Amino acid sequence: MRQSELFTTTRREAPTDEVARNAQLLIRAGYIHKEMAGVYSLLPLGLRVMEKIISIIREEMNAIGGQEVALSALQDKAVWQKSGRWSDDVVDVWFKTMLKSGTELGLGFTHEEPLTSLMVEYIHSYRDLPRAVYQFQTKFRNETRAKSGIMRGREFVMKDLYSFSRDNAEHEKFYERAKQAYTRVFNRVGLGERTYITYASGGTFSKYSHEFQTLCAAGEDTIYVCDTCHSAVNDEIIDECMHTCPQCGSRDLRTETAVEVGNIFNLGTKFSDVFGLQYLDERGVAQPVVMGSYGIGPGRVLGTIVETLSDERGIVWPKSVAPFAAHLVALTGKGTDAVMVREATDTLYENLRQRDIAVLYDDRDVQAGEKFADADLIGIPLRIVVSAKTLAQKKIEVSTRSGGEKKMIDEKEIHTLF
Amino acid sequence: MRQSELFTTTRREAPTDEVARNAQLLIRAGYIHKEMAGVYSLLPLGLRVMEKIISIIREEMNAIGGQEVALSALQDKAVWQKSGRWSDDVVDVWFKTMLKSGTELGLGFTHEEPLTSLMVEYIHSYRDLPRAVYQFQTKFRNETRAKSGIMRGREFVMKDLYSFSRDNAEHEKFYERAKQAYTRVFNRVGLGERTYITYASGGTFSKYSHEFQTLCAAGEDTIYVCDTCHSAVNDEIIDECMHTCPQCGSRDLRTETAVEVGNIFNLGTKFSDVFGLQYLDERGVAQPVVMGSYGIGPGRVLGTIVETLSDERGIVWPKSVAPFAAHLVALTGKGTDAVMVREATDTLYENLRQRDIAVLYDDRDVQAGEKFADADLIGIPLRIVVSAKTLAQKKIEVSTRSGGEKKMIDEKEIHTLF
Repeated sequence: MRQSELFTTTRREAPTDEVARNAQLLIRAGYIHKEMAGVYSLLPLGLRVMEKIISIIREEMNAIGGQEVALSALQDKAVWQKSGRWSDDVVDVWFKTMLKSGTELGLGFTHEEPLTSLMVEYIHSYRDLPRAVYQFQTKFRNETRAKSGIMRGREFVMKDLYSFSRDNAEHEKFYERAKQAYTRVFNRVGLGERTYITYASGGTFSKYSHEFQTLCAAGEDTIYVCDTCHSAVNDEIIDECMHTCPQCGSRDLRTETAVEVGNIFNLGTKFSDVFGLQYLDERGVAQPVVMGSYGIGPGRVLGTIVETLSDERGIVWPKSVAPFAAHLVALTGKGTDAVMVREATDTLYENLRQRDIAVLYDDRDVQAGEKFADADLIGIPLRIVVSAKTLAQKKIEVSTRSGGEKKMIDEKEIHTLF
Repeated sequence: MRQSELFTTTRREAPTDEVARNAQLLIRAGYIHKEMAGVYSLLPLGLRVMEKIISIIREEMNAIGGQEVALSALQDKAVWQKSGRWSDDVVDVWFKTMLKSGTELGLGFTHEEPLTSLMVEYIHSYRDLPRAVYQFQTKFRNETRAKSGIMRGREFVMKDLYSFSRDNAEHEKFYERAKQAYTRVFNRVGLGERTYITYASGGTFSKYSHEFQTLCAAGEDTIYVCDTCHSAVNDEIIDECMHTCPQCGSRDLRTETAVEVGNIFNLGTKFSDVFGLQYLDERGVAQPVVMGSYGIGPGRVLGTIVETLSDERGIVWPKSVAPFAAHLVALTGKGTDAVMVREATDTLYENLRQRDIAVLYDDRDVQAGEKFADADLIGIPLRIVVSAKTLAQKKIEVSTRSGGEKKMIDEKEIHTLF
């Protein structure tokens, strides 16, 4: 799209009350808008990145058989009372509200209860299993402090998947596939190398759960990284593990600060028991369904990418999640070449559009320095510059946001860039 | 997808407390799940239809220059106090909630206030106008009664677009384009013929607003239809109009019951004045921005399609919004032909998938009668049947859900159906 038409512009300063680097950069570059502490709206550039991240997660969830739904945010007290999680003493992040009749409602902070309750209507026989159901849904959490930008919001989109299996063996098989799918997600969004499958406390039904922790100075977690097998242990169980990697047995662990970008958890029959989610096995005997839960916050992933990959000039998006594939910059200047540069860049823009390449075209009437500074802040991975100088050589200038090295290429070679 | 893997099944009965035909059919066919009165979750089939409707609306909003955002549901009291709409005496559909600090928050029932407030940061000059900003966002409305199924929910997705113009003339031009875009939306989703641009009360800044009203027995509105010019007048202003069509002057009007599927409204400078949304014109003089609002509820559109196009056997989707392009039904039977039929249908299914045709494949081990009844209820527009009988003729049987007429065609002609 033409940058002159994009309604957002870059800003020199983020709001003074914004302390998180991810939100500061995203606000300054026009990706998000701060409504209040922990509550952010997505602007066109931010929505584009969010949609890219969501698409990648969706593909991987579909690939392991996930079926997508969209549950409601408004929650029925009666459903949550069954599991004992309605009480504010048990769950301290509820937002509660009320119907005009005085009936209390909650705003969903997770969806084990309503989904398990719903599946009771659809799972009856061993033939109805296994199942995996997921959603991208807005969660509400009444966080006491919200100082981590979009990495810990009071309102945020969560991808939560729940698995339903006949028994532990079937559950373990799916759990393993989900773990691999999560690994692919973090590789694809550009966080793979920094992200560690991390052993964490498991609860009643298994010794460990698994978190996906990305090394990040702004993270809230401490993990012990094992370089021998590229896994890690959460601080909360390091004593229990006797400072030994549960995966490979190594005792050579180093502490790091990290952010939890995903987690997978064996729920066992905790919720099935509460809601009576049972199936009849091949012999006609009622059995409880074994469940798992699998969460990724696309907004936290977005924030983590900004925290870990940005530099002093601004954001640096990986190709896979960038809002546009290329930032096309016309350096029209003030002289007699202006019209020629404008026309040549317009033509190039149309050519790229016709090839379905998503381009942000800086067609604004501002100085080159401002264009480059804005492009650095916005962080689109590939930059294409057209100027009187490049046209004199019948070339275009291309550079990457990450490396910055420039090269001159023929316009007809442009398809090799994408 | 294979129907044996789809986690939902059809149900003989809707919940007894569900009185709306749209929700009854959608629940029975497995499109939605009722969480409580006025609150429904979308199941895989329902989400597919919703996404189709949203895609059509998105295309039309982008075509008139709309830029997509996603504002927060949680609302800052201070912003709404400025416009005087925070008070429950003024707005009777608020859901309110509270931070732990005791600060009150609202759940957005519309977004004029936060968006106008946001645009103050981005609109400064005449060069920054016109702009059109829209979203598909979950609204919360504390309706006293919620008996219309998904046509009036307490939680629902709304497409709300807001326009920002330099003056009335520029506003009128956009308003006209939006009206045409809305007309295209309702044509594309299959409601065009039944939908009338309806004159309604205009408020402070223009004589009329415009509603898009679809004839529907379950609707809550009474309109006066003018067959001379295919427009209508809302009951609320029929006296003011002296029972005359404002469009063509005809007095030959007939009353109908209808549902409001969209509305477009001139907001004038009401919100710009409150939030100080001004721009400097070419002469450097500050001017207030002229705004418009344009709403469509995709869920209400979905419900209206079900209300108006279903028959006694179930739902009848228009092609454009159907969850799948075709319902492929294998009649395997019990005899020796079962394996042959299964294999032939599997092959056909794979062929269709490879052509990227979205097919629901009824591969279940149930009787033909049950398969046909389910297919009728689910309402996919095209049905393809494979049986020993069709294979003996080296044909497949195709029929449409709306007409029901069957014909036998060669499998290689199948591409002509899509």
